[in-house]
Amino acid sequence: MSFTLHPRLAQDSLPVADLPLCQVRLMNDARFPWLLLVPRRDGLRELHQLDAGERVRLIEEIALVSRVLELVYRPDKLNIGALGNLVPQLHVHVVARFQSDAAWPGPVWGSGAAHPYPAERLAQTLERLRQRCTGQS
Amino acid sequence: MSFTLHPRLAQDSLPVADLPLCQVRLMNDARFPWLLLVPRRDGLRELHQLDAGERVRLIEEIALVSRVLELVYRPDKLNIGALGNLVPQLHVHVVARFQSDAAWPGPVWGSGAAHPYPAERLAQTLERLRQRCTGQS
Repeated sequence: MSFTLHPRLAQDSLPVADLPLCQVRLMNDARFPWLLLVPRRDGLRELHQLDAGERVRLIEEIALVSRVLELVYRPDKLNIGALGNLVPQLHVHVVARFQSDAAWPGPVWGSGAAHPYPAERLAQTLERLRQRCTGQS
Repeated sequence: MSFTLHPRLAQDSLPVADLPLCQVRLMNDARFPWLLLVPRRDGLRELHQLDAGERVRLIEEIALVSRVLELVYRPDKLNIGALGNLVPQLHVHVVARFQSDAAWPGPVWGSGAAHPYPAERLAQTLERLRQRCTGQS
């Protein structure tokens, strides 16, 4: 099944791991621990275009990365969203939120310019999340 | 199983229909066709606190109301979100978005004060959505 990542998602985020349905990616924005789930199938725009089996896999993968973010970051709240007003390729945001973060209590979407991670911290974060998402730690 | 709606959700939205897991509610904001899905079980805050069977029901109910909004409103995009930064009770937003709407391309959350529906239009909208959500039309 062919899968081409939208160039905007490729630019704004980095690959963490491939799950059965989705590629997990880290948004390169150190203000928020922020993962994306991108179903690895072209032509999807809305969640209800997934077939029933894919929908089950999607919500299980949302639950998995939610637990990973909770375990790693101990956030005050998780935010989950599928918007796609700017990037039409179906993708789901899962974000660890803190009462002390830059956008609280508002949404992260539209909350200003990203602050890219410093290189070393980025590499460590990607590796830590990859291990958790693939059950290696 | 006990279910008590958070007072803020009760104030901002009106009941449309009860599905197997969730109560469907209409946000009383005529700027956006905007439904809520509220799992009818107390004590839930995050999506991954649902058990696996409830998660399947949740994503099926999200897909159902997505199709209802698409059929009734023919939006440019659907937006789905579970935030809960202000209201801790687990609830999922499903919103029909238009390139011409008041918040496009930003999110509806935090986009200013709601515009309540006029009474007659509210009653018609609730009835139309109730019929679609329960398969009566």
